[in-house]
Amino acid sequence: MFTHKTSVRIRYAETDQMGVVYYGNYAQFFEVARVEALRSLGMSYRQLEERGVILPVRSLEIQYRGSAVYDEQIEVKTVIPELPQTRIIFNHEVLNEGGKLITTGQVQLVFVSAQTKRPMRAPAYFQELFEPFF
Amino acid sequence: MFTHKTSVRIRYAETDQMGVVYYGNYAQFFEVARVEALRSLGMSYRQLEERGVILPVRSLEIQYRGSAVYDEQIEVKTVIPELPQTRIIFNHEVLNEGGKLITTGQVQLVFVSAQTKRPMRAPAYFQELFEPFF
Amino acid sequence: MFTHKTSVRIRYAETDQMGVVYYGNYAQFFEVARVEALRSLGMSYRQLEERGVILPVRSLEIQYRGSAVYDEQIEVKTVIPELPQTRIIFNHEVLNEGGKLITTGQVQLVFVSAQTKRPMRAPAYFQELFEPFF
Amino acid sequence: MFTHKTSVRIRYAETDQMGVVYYGNYAQFFEVARVEALRSLGMSYRQLEERGVILPVRSLEIQYRGSAVYDEQIEVKTVIPELPQTRIIFNHEVLNEGGKLITTGQVQLVFVSAQTKRPMRAPAYFQELFEPFF
Repeated sequence: MFTHKTSVRIRYAETDQMGVVYYGNYAQFFEVARVEALRSLGMSYRQLEERGVILPVRSLEIQYRGSAVYDEQIEVKTVIPELPQTRIIFNHEVLNEGGKLITTGQVQLVFVSAQTKRPMRAPAYFQELFEPFF
Repeated sequence: MFTHKTSVRIRYAETDQMGVVYYGNYAQFFEVARVEALRSLGMSYRQLEERGVILPVRSLEIQYRGSAVYDEQIEVKTVIPELPQTRIIFNHEVLNEGGKLITTGQVQLVFVSAQTKRPMRAPAYFQELFEPFF
Repeated sequence: MFTHKTSVRIRYAETDQMGVVYYGNYAQFFEVARVEALRSLGMSYRQLEERGVILPVRSLEIQYRGSAVYDEQIEVKTVIPELPQTRIIFNHEVLNEGGKLITTGQVQLVFVSAQTKRPMRAPAYFQELFEPFF
Repeated sequence: MFTHKTSVRIRYAETDQMGVVYYGNYAQFFEVARVEALRSLGMSYRQLEERGVILPVRSLEIQYRGSAVYDEQIEVKTVIPELPQTRIIFNHEVLNEGGKLITTGQVQLVFVSAQTKRPMRAPAYFQELFEPFF
């Protein structure tokens, strides 16, 4: 199991007239969290794309238990629960500034060749980054 | 069961560098679909808020089976599978211009009093709109 | 001079906690307006890209005189004041549902070859669409 | 004159199918820059709102000279050229990771009372933060 934490400052643009973060914007926070999680392992998602591997999202699940407000610095915890094979799973927990759990979620992405647009296994150089954790 | 269809034209802003719609933007398309579904019943979500009822999202689930591209006019089908009580469920299917199913999803929202911020039952005037369908 | 009108329904996602449309979202409304203006002339921006011509934005100017609110159907007026040569100018006026002018703006885009990424003149087939108006 | 620098990491969501940042998203980067500029002076925009002062945007101008790409850490320079009175002006320059100037812009905001929704002068406690710089 691999775990990581990153923080995101809520922008005014991300609030809505209910005075809290618009529900759809968590998808972006999860994106930031998984990108930073990969970067911490030594490979950015950008580098992966440059090597011809893209990671389209297959599913997204979010449970909303509370709200984040403008200017708050939320913490997004990321857990990768299994060694990536043909897909990679990210489990997320979002905490507000007071440490309260406000959102949980899961994103599943699949490995696809940028050239053929067909599914592929995670490249060996990518899996090796995870092996110490599993 | 209540069903409704609406269409959304994909904006350039909604694409990403993969050349397709960014995964998080489907939350907005679902929002458009449920708002138009309610409007077709005779009550806009805006009117509901003006009467002191807000509908925060409790959960979101999306499965991605294909992609939508720039300028496509996608069709978002909405099914409300049960009479709204303390929550309202929207099931969605998104079809691309060729009629292919590209995304499915579900959004659950809960009825909350704008004044007290506490959960409430769907108002009678709101439930009455749905009764012919259940 | 070529003129066109299109309407946009404000999404919840597009509001912010001030209770009005976030200032940055007008760039998307202008995008919708110019795309529909071109479509009304018989050529979509998508078709232009498919023929190898891209139109990056060179400048954006917006003056805010009022606000649009959630669920409002705003009208975006578009004027193309001159025959496109190496650039194309779009002047916009945004009216709220009551017909009040709330925003004015201008977007300038330049013609660029998708292949060479270098500036180019507007293609003849594109200019011909505009000739009846100038 | 007051100057400040902040950096923003480009999200995948912020790119479009041209492979660069969508033109409208710079409004958000400018928002981040001015919020961080104010925070560095000792007062967050959130605190200002909590004291009953809101700052709607009156005008936005952006010139695009180049592009930012996914995952780049852009630098947004902010200059406040004059002591805020009834309005506050932010001039911005955006540099890409290589230090190249890619965008310039200006945002003007006006001081408005949250209670009366009428224009007001910048509060004394706010102006005092700027006095050392003018």
